[in-house]
Amino acid sequence: MIQHLAVVGATGAVGREVCTLLGRYSHRVKRVSLLASKRGAGTRIPVGETVVEVRELTGQSFKGVDFVICCAGGEVSRQFAPIAVGEGAVVIDNSSVFRMEADVPLVIPEINPGDARRHRGIVANPNCSTIIMNVAVWPLHQANPLTRIVVDTYQAASGAGASAMEELRVQTADVLEGRPARPRVFRHPIAFNLFSHDTPIGPDGYNTEERKMIDETRKIFHQPSLAVTATCVRVPVLRAHSEAIHLTFERPMSPDSVREILRKAPGVELVDDVRGGRFPMPVDATGRDPVLVGRIRQDASQPDSRGIALFACGDQLRKGAALNALQILECLLD
Amino acid sequence: MIQHLAVVGATGAVGREVCTLLGRYSHRVKRVSLLASKRGAGTRIPVGETVVEVRELTGQSFKGVDFVICCAGGEVSRQFAPIAVGEGAVVIDNSSVFRMEADVPLVIPEINPGDARRHRGIVANPNCSTIIMNVAVWPLHQANPLTRIVVDTYQAASGAGASAMEELRVQTADVLEGRPARPRVFRHPIAFNLFSHDTPIGPDGYNTEERKMIDETRKIFHQPSLAVTATCVRVPVLRAHSEAIHLTFERPMSPDSVREILRKAPGVELVDDVRGGRFPMPVDATGRDPVLVGRIRQDASQPDSRGIALFACGDQLRKGAALNALQILECLLD
Repeated sequence: MIQHLAVVGATGAVGREVCTLLGRYSHRVKRVSLLASKRGAGTRIPVGETVVEVRELTGQSFKGVDFVICCAGGEVSRQFAPIAVGEGAVVIDNSSVFRMEADVPLVIPEINPGDARRHRGIVANPNCSTIIMNVAVWPLHQANPLTRIVVDTYQAASGAGASAMEELRVQTADVLEGRPARPRVFRHPIAFNLFSHDTPIGPDGYNTEERKMIDETRKIFHQPSLAVTATCVRVPVLRAHSEAIHLTFERPMSPDSVREILRKAPGVELVDDVRGGRFPMPVDATGRDPVLVGRIRQDASQPDSRGIALFACGDQLRKGAALNALQILECLLD
Repeated sequence: MIQHLAVVGATGAVGREVCTLLGRYSHRVKRVSLLASKRGAGTRIPVGETVVEVRELTGQSFKGVDFVICCAGGEVSRQFAPIAVGEGAVVIDNSSVFRMEADVPLVIPEINPGDARRHRGIVANPNCSTIIMNVAVWPLHQANPLTRIVVDTYQAASGAGASAMEELRVQTADVLEGRPARPRVFRHPIAFNLFSHDTPIGPDGYNTEERKMIDETRKIFHQPSLAVTATCVRVPVLRAHSEAIHLTFERPMSPDSVREILRKAPGVELVDDVRGGRFPMPVDATGRDPVLVGRIRQDASQPDSRGIALFACGDQLRKGAALNALQILECLLD
């Protein structure tokens, strides 16, 4: 039983999704506090059967709180997570600031639930694209070790927050009516356009989002030298990410065995209807828990039947963020 | 000098783009006939400085015609290309029906212009995604032979014709106003959505678009066993395709040498401004000739510096179709 759960950043896209999903946990949570910036304070947000008023986040917000879900971005996490931990709370942090720290577990409950308990106050929620890929890829890796992952993403606006989703809607309406696209949240036009994920690029040429997919996968899998490459791209989709994935296995792997494994895999829904032409799509993943996986086929470019290609979609706000955070909370309670 | 050029399918998206670009060739073409179905006959379309009225395509349309550019789809090509050839014309065919025939050259003028002359009446214009990828990849392959290409596409609506572009606009407006997406041209919703390219899937699990990218690349490169894999995806973009490409070379290849080669490569524009955050985007490729290439980096997942990742965008109607067809015409004249 949780005596007092605080959600930091409750008015944001991920925070609101946490509130929506908290309805499922009402029997395990006695009290919920919703916290946000001064601007968001006073907002009333439904949490299960009740409506909770958002209060302003301050250094005093965590007294008596036993769990915090932090969804307000890196700067807020960096400032307030240590305060919450100092007050005795366990923080599940959705930002990237603690993810690669050695004493912070990085957890996808379908993969490494045991890591969650090895925390020192903070458990990190992985990057959304990383979660969606790895829910699909991990069960295969268990059956036949992976030697390389190539992934190219089709990432929704929601990954940049509620204001980015609004920008996609408003800018698209503008363009349809002949007005110019005016980028504000994103650096580039998003209406009827796409662009390389607009995070900083390191000296190795990878942007931060791609680097997260590489480094976080290695940490979650406990395989610090797993070969992973990624190209991350923002597309004009609202809230579900898609990923084209090309895998190399140690031993031969057949599409049928991949389907067999994924049919039983936790968090996965097989959507691979060749006859009906039905495969994973963002509109079908939106507002749902599972990662949809399909287009499973032998990768014809790899020798000895060791290659598999597939396509996955998952709701960025749900399994990519809020749901995974709540599943981490469950790991900590069990 | 061309005495009489006929454009079949002049009222379609590619046909109209051919008409636009024909302005550049007015000094080399004496007479232009525009042909389309009965429904399109009577339409007046600008060709360079003049306006030409579309006439109905019939078996009699090719008398005295020396070159035909066919952009009306597979069934029309299958029926009328042989008639035009019988009348002594050379047909540049934009459909896929003849592309893999042994006696039909498949030509990207930047790559295999010499093949164009080995025709027996028909020269095939490759698939749009294939052209855009290979303009970027071929010059690298010349410097250091490729052993594997992995490509994931982000394909615009224009690839399915003018009606698909209109569907993207209308459906997006519908969704923005709270009405349901009503797919007609595409099988699936395209507004704020994406989907696996909706062409038939073969017994190997690849769809026809992916199979084209694999088989046509091998034919154009004259390398029937080159390892290529592709995942083709339709995205809500109007008329420029994007592609995330992961290359494996025989020998080590540095990002700097890739940039050096592509800076001088015909048909390529290097857009790889890490400092300014400027990389290839559909809005920047739209209405322009070159294939934009950027995000060039060492693929960290491949040993011995033999891997390169990059991102390319090209206008699907222009270099992906109309421009390449006209460049083939130039090869035949030279």
